[in-house]
Amino acid sequence: MSVDPEGARKHSVRQVEIRRVVDAAEASSTADVVAAEEPLGIRLGYSRPDGSRAEEDVSITMRTPGYDADLAVGFLFTEGIIHSHSEVQGVVPRGQPDLNGLINSVRVDLVPGVEVDFKRLERHFYTSSSCGVCGKASLDLVAVQGRFDLHGATFKIAAETLGKLPALLASRQAVFEQTGGLHASGLFDSNGDIVATREDVGRHNALDKLIGDALLHDRVPLTDYGIVLSGRASFELMQKAKMAGCALVAAVGAPSSLAVELAVQFGITLVGFLKARRFNVYSRPDRIL
Amino acid sequence: MSVDPEGARKHSVRQVEIRRVVDAAEASSTADVVAAEEPLGIRLGYSRPDGSRAEEDVSITMRTPGYDADLAVGFLFTEGIIHSHSEVQGVVPRGQPDLNGLINSVRVDLVPGVEVDFKRLERHFYTSSSCGVCGKASLDLVAVQGRFDLHGATFKIAAETLGKLPALLASRQAVFEQTGGLHASGLFDSNGDIVATREDVGRHNALDKLIGDALLHDRVPLTDYGIVLSGRASFELMQKAKMAGCALVAAVGAPSSLAVELAVQFGITLVGFLKARRFNVYSRPDRIL
Repeated sequence: MSVDPEGARKHSVRQVEIRRVVDAAEASSTADVVAAEEPLGIRLGYSRPDGSRAEEDVSITMRTPGYDADLAVGFLFTEGIIHSHSEVQGVVPRGQPDLNGLINSVRVDLVPGVEVDFKRLERHFYTSSSCGVCGKASLDLVAVQGRFDLHGATFKIAAETLGKLPALLASRQAVFEQTGGLHASGLFDSNGDIVATREDVGRHNALDKLIGDALLHDRVPLTDYGIVLSGRASFELMQKAKMAGCALVAAVGAPSSLAVELAVQFGITLVGFLKARRFNVYSRPDRIL
Repeated sequence: MSVDPEGARKHSVRQVEIRRVVDAAEASSTADVVAAEEPLGIRLGYSRPDGSRAEEDVSITMRTPGYDADLAVGFLFTEGIIHSHSEVQGVVPRGQPDLNGLINSVRVDLVPGVEVDFKRLERHFYTSSSCGVCGKASLDLVAVQGRFDLHGATFKIAAETLGKLPALLASRQAVFEQTGGLHASGLFDSNGDIVATREDVGRHNALDKLIGDALLHDRVPLTDYGIVLSGRASFELMQKAKMAGCALVAAVGAPSSLAVELAVQFGITLVGFLKARRFNVYSRPDRIL
């Protein structure tokens, strides 16, 4: 059950090639690192009343690799499935390493005799998902089939125009500024005009609201628009952009490794750390003039 | 399907009474607002092959009230359950208003003849949840039964000591600082010493890692510790703190309305906007000296 801090450090970040844009005019390619985001399957090993051993999948979560045993045990405990350290016999990695050398599944073995409340387990496992994370085991599953192919999308925007979006989005957030607790997403055209904004405590909800509004206004596929996000870009937001047919996503915060991977796979231009005079481009920089 | 921007504005924030601490010495009670966080049930109304109407629950999400129709339609679309505006007949609120006058359930009615891919629906509805959000319909359900009663917890910390935590947590994050993409959580004692930190792209994972580590080190219940969070405090983080028996949660970011409600209900001291020389206390200020 020991952890590997060195391994955790190595696997918690991922190297990517980015284009750094400063003062609209310059753009240099450079290596950068992003936070790693990979699925972790959590499985429970337990004893049946007759003493035989059994296993059950409990959860799949998108996590930053490292301290997987802590995560699995902490999850089971905070969900009320296990109640103390003494119920845990051990935590073992399962399956083969992926392309990055990571093992993305662990089994938590319970001490013989510990009873599992399967009703609770079922409530937690077989419940609804709105966050887009849950129950998607691999990148293949994560990549929901969208109908719109974005590789050939012709949407373009000037770097200078892009740099004005954070301030524009913030000005539209004025009503909620007081709480400091809301994520915002905005839809903008190639002139940099924001045509809609939506906010929520959940970033996936803010984007679902924005896309729902666009669908009801018959703007989907979002061929002529880009999406700006007030925070970080995770894989689920890229997935939603792809579903809506949007070829440019610009985030004020950092992207995760899986967001970058999906952007490349989908042919989406992904911008991160968007500021007035500088930003990073993680994929398809050709759409930024 | 029209939305009510005035209603959205009114319901997206919630008034709370806080204690504002400045320069450790002063503390004044004042009214403040936090971002509202409430469950929204999404139900689908559709036609069976024989033409009769049927309904099915699709998702429960924790959202900021307002633009619920956009959210429901956007969710169904980005999850691939509906494919165009023309499939949507209308969105209707369901059930009775709650104590705040909010209706927390909507039904999206599909045009007769539109087929629903129930396999896809089931994959999304009956899948695992690790974020703690999914499938919990009301505050009662949200409040997972923890064994530890925190109302009488005696943990205390000096305001000045509390103010030093953000810098301490950040210094422990040094390895990951480069990505700008990780949430951190830390466990500290009443002297303000940080005994463990964990990081993740998901804030719930960062806290599960921290609590898992504490459980494996036999520190649970966390009677002698507080938890510091690098970002915002949502209801799920309060729920995890309660499960672990921790009576003080200090967030560098903003708390949501439901986080404040749960803190009050659980008897947890909740601190938000924690900075070196000032912070807000949303519940049980008596534990801060």
